Formats: sequence, structure tokens, C-alpha cells
Amino acid sequence: MNILLDTMGGDNAPGAMVYGALDAIKEQGDFEITLLGDRRSIEDILINEEYDKSRLHIRHTTQEITNNDKPTRAIKTKQDSSMVVGFNMLNNKEGDVFISTGSSGALLIGAITILKRIPGIDRPALGSVIPSKKGRVLLVDSGLNMTCRPDHYEQFAYMGSAYMKAVFGIESPRIGLVNVGTEEEKGTTVIKEANKLLRGSHLNYVGYIEGKDLFTGVADVIVTDGFTGNVILKLIEGASKFIFSGLKNVLYESWRSKISALLLKKGLTSFKKSLDPDVNGGAPILGVNGLVIKSHGNSTAKTIKHVILKADALARSTYMDDIKNELEHLHNDKTEVLVVKE
Amino acid sequence: MNILLDTMGGDNAPGAMVYGALDAIKEQGDFEITLLGDRRSIEDILINEEYDKSRLHIRHTTQEITNNDKPTRAIKTKQDSSMVVGFNMLNNKEGDVFISTGSSGALLIGAITILKRIPGIDRPALGSVIPSKKGRVLLVDSGLNMTCRPDHYEQFAYMGSAYMKAVFGIESPRIGLVNVGTEEEKGTTVIKEANKLLRGSHLNYVGYIEGKDLFTGVADVIVTDGFTGNVILKLIEGASKFIFSGLKNVLYESWRSKISALLLKKGLTSFKKSLDPDVNGGAPILGVNGLVIKSHGNSTAKTIKHVILKADALARSTYMDDIKNELEHLHNDKTEVLVVKE
Repeated sequence: MNILLDTMGGDNAPGAMVYGALDAIKEQGDFEITLLGDRRSIEDILINEEYDKSRLHIRHTTQEITNNDKPTRAIKTKQDSSMVVGFNMLNNKEGDVFISTGSSGALLIGAITILKRIPGIDRPALGSVIPSKKGRVLLVDSGLNMTCRPDHYEQFAYMGSAYMKAVFGIESPRIGLVNVGTEEEKGTTVIKEANKLLRGSHLNYVGYIEGKDLFTGVADVIVTDGFTGNVILKLIEGASKFIFSGLKNVLYESWRSKISALLLKKGLTSFKKSLDPDVNGGAPILGVNGLVIKSHGNSTAKTIKHVILKADALARSTYMDDIKNELEHLHNDKTEVLVVKE
Repeated sequence: MNILLDTMGGDNAPGAMVYGALDAIKEQGDFEITLLGDRRSIEDILINEEYDKSRLHIRHTTQEITNNDKPTRAIKTKQDSSMVVGFNMLNNKEGDVFISTGSSGALLIGAITILKRIPGIDRPALGSVIPSKKGRVLLVDSGLNMTCRPDHYEQFAYMGSAYMKAVFGIESPRIGLVNVGTEEEKGTTVIKEANKLLRGSHLNYVGYIEGKDLFTGVADVIVTDGFTGNVILKLIEGASKFIFSGLKNVLYESWRSKISALLLKKGLTSFKKSLDPDVNGGAPILGVNGLVIKSHGNSTAKTIKHVILKADALARSTYMDDIKNELEHLHNDKTEVLVVKE
């Protein structure tokens, strides 16, 4: 198992990636990591560290794709960037999974043009894991496709279902579609059409899901467009910060409350940790021929370590086969619809 | 000051409305309330209560508009429904503000067809108050218009600005536009066009605002389409419930934590209360000739009491004049754009 790690991009490059990789190989013993980026910057960090040199490699690259680059042009012209080299190595089977904190737009274009889409998928999508009362929930699309056709939502559902089955072992993942109410006539025309497609699919579709029910565990996969998905993901982050900061004020307002704060410290820390997006292992780009994981721009070494460990598990899972099998159903669904129409 | 209160519709009708009205007149002394609905059901509750009879009136109506009715048809045909009678009384100056927990769709249609839109407004919108680190923030549209044109966002911004100025006394309310990032090139085509219109307006526009910054107080008015707004509003409710329920588990897991729970009770209760949507006083339908406030379907007597007190303050404010003055600027903005184009 070889994990390809882009050390360019993000706010804490390359330190967060290099230290994250070191922590990951210390924590688990059965994979190798190839660090992609500027050899000298990487070696400057590694020189002071002790680690198993047979498990950590460097692939020197000379270019960087930034958030200011136009994605399509950058992927085309920056052939020796850490990102393009990563995609090419993944494509040539020189690695099993590619992790990057770089520009979402460039990652999407790279994934589409170099790895290519899985047949049946028009729009690859980002899947992000969010917490819920009954375990983890996958939010698809959480930020790549700003506007969607009804059949795109259906594709997101198939990809999300395959992912939750392979990675979290859920037999028949329940799919929910984000809407403004649960009654059939609610929402936009596009959402109502997507609802019809999902009702007619082979998926375990449970219907519309409202904002207030995202955390109640009524679905394992929550499907939405990338605009709404991004707002949801960041709103969860903001709401959690807002509430915990208010809570902190309550805990430190008097000597009585400070005593309580001490007594509660362990429980509160572990609860807060369960909400921490850092431990959820990054967001997979679903729907392309290869495993690509996007980690957020302000990832720390801790984030990267968790992403590497989850990526290793994902690469060992049956996800790539599962998603192709699931998409057979999507083809069948479409054929049936066509037959009915004729 | 006469407040018109629809006692039909919602999960707790008519009890929540009647008790809420009784509590409101007991708490403050300078307005009257007219209860609209079935006289007998209302009197069955009032008969056991002591109150100032000169301040609480009943206007008997015989019909009800439910969530299952088609809004346009219902407003047209159910002329003796509590909702249509309420709109007509408001229109005839027999009341100063109309409060209802009924169907959003019917309220919107009633407001548009009976009260009419303020010139310059194409799409009336729902404004909901959400908490933030630095006071209250108005979210417009929080649920009426599923898809919007760029100029609709600009109208929402003008209406929200006037509301925050009149009701919360904010001199020059800061306007933010919900998007997936803060860079100019982010988002959908419609959002990018709305951004340009807002930049060219007379408003105090601060630019794009991401989900994670909704609570940081960087804007006083947050503008979005009704689909995203509804998801945001309900997500805040869900996230708050989810986090407080996790917190409850932490507080009751051991004898040590139970002691802390006792010491923290007062602080926690008051913090939780500050997040409670019930104390925010309902959501105004902005952009029509008259003050209409929608309270959510599961409003309790406590909710209704708060909505009545806020409605009274709104009716005494300069809001209706302010919004018309603000819209003068909107007309001027448009004229300027036309002049530039010619």
C-alpha cells in the first residue's frame, strides 16, 4: 500500500503534511507514504526526525498549483506540479490513494481529466462525513457542483451509498435528500424531479430531510447540491464553535462554575472531540477512477495523520468495486425508465 | 394599537394563541388584541380566565386554511377564514399588525393579493432573527422564494436593512450575501450577479459570507434564497438540539458531573435561552403594504406571547416608512444602472 501525499497547498504546507506523515507511520505499521513536493523543504524537516526510512519516500516536484490558478489551465500547463504528478502516479498504479489539501477546483479538474469519470457519472462530487446521534453521516455533494440536474442528485446517492457500505460497513445505507419540508410538493422543481428519480431507484431512499433532522440519524447519506452542501458543512463548524464558546463563558463566569469546569473537563473534551471534523479523515472525491481525498486548507499535522489512516483503510476496502457494482443498478434504472417511456 | 391574532393553524391551536394573548396583555399594558377564529373554541378557554375584557376581542370566523390547501385557491375561496379576514382587517386599518402560525404559502399569497407589494419589490420575503456573538442577525429570505434572480437578493437586502434599522436601531446595517467562499469568483452565476448589484447599491454591503461566519457577527442582515435560508434556519435548530443533548449526557454521566450540573444550572439555562428561537418574536413577511408576522407551526403560548410583544414594538416603529424610503434608493440604483447602459 503506497499513499501519495501532496505537500504543497493549504495554510500549513509543507510542515503539517510531513509531520502528519511521520505520526501516521509511527501509529500504524503496514503502508508506505510518498511525499510529493519540493525535496529540500521536505528534507529540512525530516533531517531532525527519526523514522523508518523504508516507509517514507520523496518524489521531487518543481511546480505548485495555487488557489489563484485557473483550475483547467493549471492542470494542463503545470505538468510537474505536486498535484498533477500525484494524479499521474495514481493513474499509473504507482500509488493507491492520493491526498491533497490543494484547490478544490484544480483537484476536481485533475481527477476528471487524468483519472477520468467512472462510466455513468457526469459529476464527481465531494463526500464529507458529519456527526449525528447514531454514528457518521456522509454529505454529498459538499462543495464541487454549484448547480445540479435531477439525475446528478441520483448519481451522488449511488456514490454515497457505495462509500458508506464499503467504508463504514452499512449494509443498505439510507439515503435522504435535503429539502425545505418533508411533504412531496415542497421545494424546487429540480428537487422534486430528483425525489422522483430516487423513489424509482434501487437505493434505500427514505425521502426528504430537513435541516433540523441532519443530526438525528434518519439517513446515512445526505444528498444535496454543492452550494447547499458547502453552506451546511461550514455552518456546522460555525454553530459548533459558537455554542462551545458560549459554553466556555458559562464555565468561567464564577468560582462555582470554574469548579464544575474542572469536574467536567474529561467528558467535555471527549464530546468536543467527537464533533471535531479533523478526526473524520478528509473528504473523498467520489465518481472517478481512483481514490482521491481532499483535506481542508487549514489542515494540521493531526488532521493529516487521521486522513492518512482513513485513506489507508479506504484503499484496502472494496469501495472501488462496490461503486462500479452500484452503478450497474443506475444503468438498469435508466434502461427501465427508457423502456417505460417507449 | 390593535394586534390581530389568527387562532387557527399550527399544532397547538387555538390554546397556544389564546393563552399567549392572555400572557401578553398581562405583561404589557398599552395594546389590544383581536383573536380571529371560532368564537366558541376561544370562549371555552377564556371562560376560566381573569383578564381585562376591554383589551381582548374576538372576531368570529367560520373557515380555516390548512397546510393541505392550495394557497392561491384557498385565499380566493375561503373568504371567511381567519387568515383572509385578518388580511382584510389589516388592509382596512382595523388592526395594526397581523400574526399567524398558518401555512407560509397561503400567508405569502394573502399578503401579495390582499395587501399588495410595496412598489419596487417583486418578491416579498421572510426575515428570521438568528443569534450571533454580537447581537441579533436577520436572515432574509428564510423560506418563501425557492429560486431567485440576482435583483431579488438586492430587494431582500433593502428590506432587511430597513427592518434592522427600525426594529433594532442599527444605524447602517451591514449586509452579507451567503456564498461558498469569500473570493469574488466563487459561487453560482446568480450569486455573482447579485454580488455586483449589491456592490453598486447604497447599502452597507460587506460582501460574501460563508456558513462558518454566520454567527461571528460580521453582518446584521444575511441575504440568501429561500431554499438555502430555510435549510440554514432549521440546521441551526438541529445543531443546537444535537449539541445540547450531547452536553446533557456529559452532565449526567457520573456523580461528579451531576454536581457540576447543579452548579451550572443557572448559567446554562440562561445561555440556552439566548439561543431559543421562541424569544425572537416570529418572522416578518417583508415587502408588502402591512405588517404580517409568521410564527412557526409548533408555536407555544410562550412563543406567541413573545411574538405579540415584538409585533407591538414593530407596529410602533418607523419600519413601514423606512422601508419605503430605502426603496427610493433601490429605484435610484436602477435608474443609474440604466443611465450607464445607455
